[in-house]
Amino acid sequence: MSIAQSFYQKHENLLGLACQAVQDRGHWTPYPEVPSGKIYGANAKVEGADAYLASLHKPFTLQGPAVTGTVGEEVSPYNGPLGIQYDAYAASDLVSAAKQALPEWRDAGAEVRTGICLEILERLNKRSFEVGNATMHTTGQGFAMAFQAGGPHAQDRGLEAIATTWLATSRVPNDSVWNKPQGKHDPLVMNKRYHIVPKGVALVVACSTFPTWNTYPGLFASLVTGNPVIIKPHSQAILPVAITVQVCQQVLAEAGFDPKLVMLAAEGSDASIAQVLATHKDVRLIDYTGGNGFGDWLSANATQATLYKEQAGVNTILIDSVVNLKRAAQNLAFSLSLYSGQMCTTPQALLIPKGGIDTDQGHLSFDEVSSVLCTTITKFLSDPDRAAGVLGAIPNPATVERLAQAKNLGKVVLESQTCALPGFDGAVYHTPLILSVEGSDEAWQQEQFGPISFIVAVDSTEQGLELISEAIAEKGAITFGVYSTDESVLESAEKVAIEQGVALSCNLDAGVFVNQSAAFSDFHATGNNPAANAALTDPAFVAGRFAVVQSRRHTSV
Amino acid sequence: MSIAQSFYQKHENLLGLACQAVQDRGHWTPYPEVPSGKIYGANAKVEGADAYLASLHKPFTLQGPAVTGTVGEEVSPYNGPLGIQYDAYAASDLVSAAKQALPEWRDAGAEVRTGICLEILERLNKRSFEVGNATMHTTGQGFAMAFQAGGPHAQDRGLEAIATTWLATSRVPNDSVWNKPQGKHDPLVMNKRYHIVPKGVALVVACSTFPTWNTYPGLFASLVTGNPVIIKPHSQAILPVAITVQVCQQVLAEAGFDPKLVMLAAEGSDASIAQVLATHKDVRLIDYTGGNGFGDWLSANATQATLYKEQAGVNTILIDSVVNLKRAAQNLAFSLSLYSGQMCTTPQALLIPKGGIDTDQGHLSFDEVSSVLCTTITKFLSDPDRAAGVLGAIPNPATVERLAQAKNLGKVVLESQTCALPGFDGAVYHTPLILSVEGSDEAWQQEQFGPISFIVAVDSTEQGLELISEAIAEKGAITFGVYSTDESVLESAEKVAIEQGVALSCNLDAGVFVNQSAAFSDFHATGNNPAANAALTDPAFVAGRFAVVQSRRHTSV
Repeated sequence: MSIAQSFYQKHENLLGLACQAVQDRGHWTPYPEVPSGKIYGANAKVEGADAYLASLHKPFTLQGPAVTGTVGEEVSPYNGPLGIQYDAYAASDLVSAAKQALPEWRDAGAEVRTGICLEILERLNKRSFEVGNATMHTTGQGFAMAFQAGGPHAQDRGLEAIATTWLATSRVPNDSVWNKPQGKHDPLVMNKRYHIVPKGVALVVACSTFPTWNTYPGLFASLVTGNPVIIKPHSQAILPVAITVQVCQQVLAEAGFDPKLVMLAAEGSDASIAQVLATHKDVRLIDYTGGNGFGDWLSANATQATLYKEQAGVNTILIDSVVNLKRAAQNLAFSLSLYSGQMCTTPQALLIPKGGIDTDQGHLSFDEVSSVLCTTITKFLSDPDRAAGVLGAIPNPATVERLAQAKNLGKVVLESQTCALPGFDGAVYHTPLILSVEGSDEAWQQEQFGPISFIVAVDSTEQGLELISEAIAEKGAITFGVYSTDESVLESAEKVAIEQGVALSCNLDAGVFVNQSAAFSDFHATGNNPAANAALTDPAFVAGRFAVVQSRRHTSV
Repeated sequence: MSIAQSFYQKHENLLGLACQAVQDRGHWTPYPEVPSGKIYGANAKVEGADAYLASLHKPFTLQGPAVTGTVGEEVSPYNGPLGIQYDAYAASDLVSAAKQALPEWRDAGAEVRTGICLEILERLNKRSFEVGNATMHTTGQGFAMAFQAGGPHAQDRGLEAIATTWLATSRVPNDSVWNKPQGKHDPLVMNKRYHIVPKGVALVVACSTFPTWNTYPGLFASLVTGNPVIIKPHSQAILPVAITVQVCQQVLAEAGFDPKLVMLAAEGSDASIAQVLATHKDVRLIDYTGGNGFGDWLSANATQATLYKEQAGVNTILIDSVVNLKRAAQNLAFSLSLYSGQMCTTPQALLIPKGGIDTDQGHLSFDEVSSVLCTTITKFLSDPDRAAGVLGAIPNPATVERLAQAKNLGKVVLESQTCALPGFDGAVYHTPLILSVEGSDEAWQQEQFGPISFIVAVDSTEQGLELISEAIAEKGAITFGVYSTDESVLESAEKVAIEQGVALSCNLDAGVFVNQSAAFSDFHATGNNPAANAALTDPAFVAGRFAVVQSRRHTSV
């Protein structure tokens, strides 16, 4: 048995469990999210940190075509430049190398490709602490979040994509016998063969905030269906992607395949290789996560490719009434603070009726509810260690500048504080800015990337739902939360969710947060509103990455 | 039980068999292709013909928005104008009416929608003789072909689309329980609901040659996933589509739904409602079969919609060697003649090595093989009744004109004959024109719609494969045939098929023809070359027609 085949055998059971999980949609994961030595090995934490440190201030070498130069300008918002140099390549050379690697990969068949991809995920899981450090220092996330979102949660999404693809491709048999009766005559009998074939070269344009989590679904869905993948990381968040590419290349080479089936297209912040790659005639699949500027450009220009994109949106929370105000406020305080509001799922606007709401503390006015929320956020972030862990450090100066400017967008009900980040000299964190506005104010309907949220006074719950519905239709959204003790309000919210294509979370007041989605159970985005034209991971996310080619011939008897 | 639910119960077993069939891909159909009174009822043939005649020279009324006028200029190439008047509507009114019908249809759920669609197919099957007559007199197909392709074979493709959709949507459960352990603490438990939701309003732009066969896959795949469908028929082939819409509306109304979930957008040959509909912001799905002009226009302009299109291509046959020349030539004679070469699957070019080929009659020269082919065609079409049945009558004067002009495209090795069509005064049929050209000649690489084919002299089998590979890459193709007694040649052809994304037929010399594909077993097109960006019916053809919207809330205990 070849090494490639042995990978499939090794992981066959896991694949079966993952396929079951995406159909059951309960809680399931093979990749523990707790960064614990008991799970990952007593020395895993130290070794991961050391591996990260060892990669700094030197070249990070990968397989690729002819090197045209070096790039690398990553800066940790915690402690300065990473100093890593990555090889740069010409876009056309990357595509040529990918095309060259394609036929052998395509012809290897689904089992071999899937086995290799599952082995890649297992090895990535073992490097979760290293990836966690790399993610922390490129994205600015606190370590716990960087470990989880960059490591096991990203791996979950990768495995989910592999399982969803497996389910789609395994619907097509390898061969069949077609036997058509001809009355008194002999039947017509044909043997048919069916081949799963890739679409071509795939490009993943990764984002700066979740360089692995948003990359793995497209990477693995494309790779298991036979498409070579070029990953263009954000110039500020290359290392987590580079480690991923390294693991991919190692496993591919070990199994006897061209490591250039997965390549890194690193570039500086002033370069434009993404545009050149995205419009190359042989690039047929593009996964993109990022801002609307490049997202819209891709839609208009990369017409030769199928585009799976996730871009900006305006996520909302409607508060009609609450069972337990304290718990609801705690839940929201965490959601608004986590990663300084830089998640594509962070709520940006909390809509509350002007007349106030019913709570377990009695009917509270709009201002009282607003006050409870702000006080809860302040209290939650009063411990600098906890605040630093939850908020992280903002890597992009433009986000800090936006935060400063945002004060003018409404009435400030909670000032943003800039505080020294414990353990990292000179680093800071920023607590959320909360603004109060009217429902008619357009400010809350513009995405404000960063720790900026609005409390929006609406005439009524009904008007709140209408405004939310309009905002999603126009701006898009990935999440929508509702708090109500009235079942009819929850059902109205569900109707809005269905009509506007957004995931709904009801009455979250425990350890689940509106900005977190669980792979195998929660779909991330729907593809039915402007925030994204694809969903992690529904059948459409994988089905367009392969075609079926058949042949037929009469049975020779 | 509602009528809608009873339809599902009635057809549940059929659905199960269809789902099994698309996964087994053997021979299967519930809709008999033989136009026999024993199957369809002793009077079915007469009644179907009478129903067709009764529809002529009067209005054909359907449900729709406000009527803005009447259209109708269909002309039977057998016996003149049909004289049917169809209501015309404003594009925006059609879309508004479709949008209004959407929510109830979406909320009805997959079972209800599927049951209704299966009932529609059953009733269409019962009207196969009527649809056959309508297809014959609009497309010009001979009756037997019009019955099969317009009736049961189209119904097969519709059912295949429904089954493929069912398999994709039923992967997503209606609900789940997510139970996440929290160590010593109580687990986090959430109830989740998942909704299959449509993308929006769907448009099917039907073609003149196969108004039902090419329409049913998109119609039913969109309809079962909750999308209302507007069908814009070709101005020359409205009636088969109108009958289809009538059946859809009858069953929908009977089940208590808005009949305007399926509407006809008929227009004259000088109108442009297709452009207006295709670019309407609420039209989110478009199925198109037709020429490259409008296909390219749709790709460039209908960017708000997901487009599934099939357009022109150049289908080829490579003849390397044959087991039985007589049988192979008979098979090809039928393929080149059927429906006057107007199928999107008709071979346009037969590539034969200059040095001749090995056959069961010994090694024959290029000219000898060419001569055998032409003689076989002539003999096959020597019986006027058979010729008329196979060739049919060409409805479009431009095709006849193209045939006249095509003589100049190469050396004529078989003249096209224009012959009186038995049973229809003044009607004619046209036998195929066969031209001989060199491999380097560009003429054979341009689609020549109609009974025009090329015998192409190539240096060798290898060169032939290279030329075919290039032609498919540049022009696209839906079919590719190869004749060879050498397994390595067959494997090389299979490699070309895989690389260029085209279906391969090997050594067809019995009752299966390269231009015919069997639903449930053969995929029609692949989506991997310029002839089509979609395939009937693979997972990608259905997956983009719906999204999944979820909600979640903590379990109340």
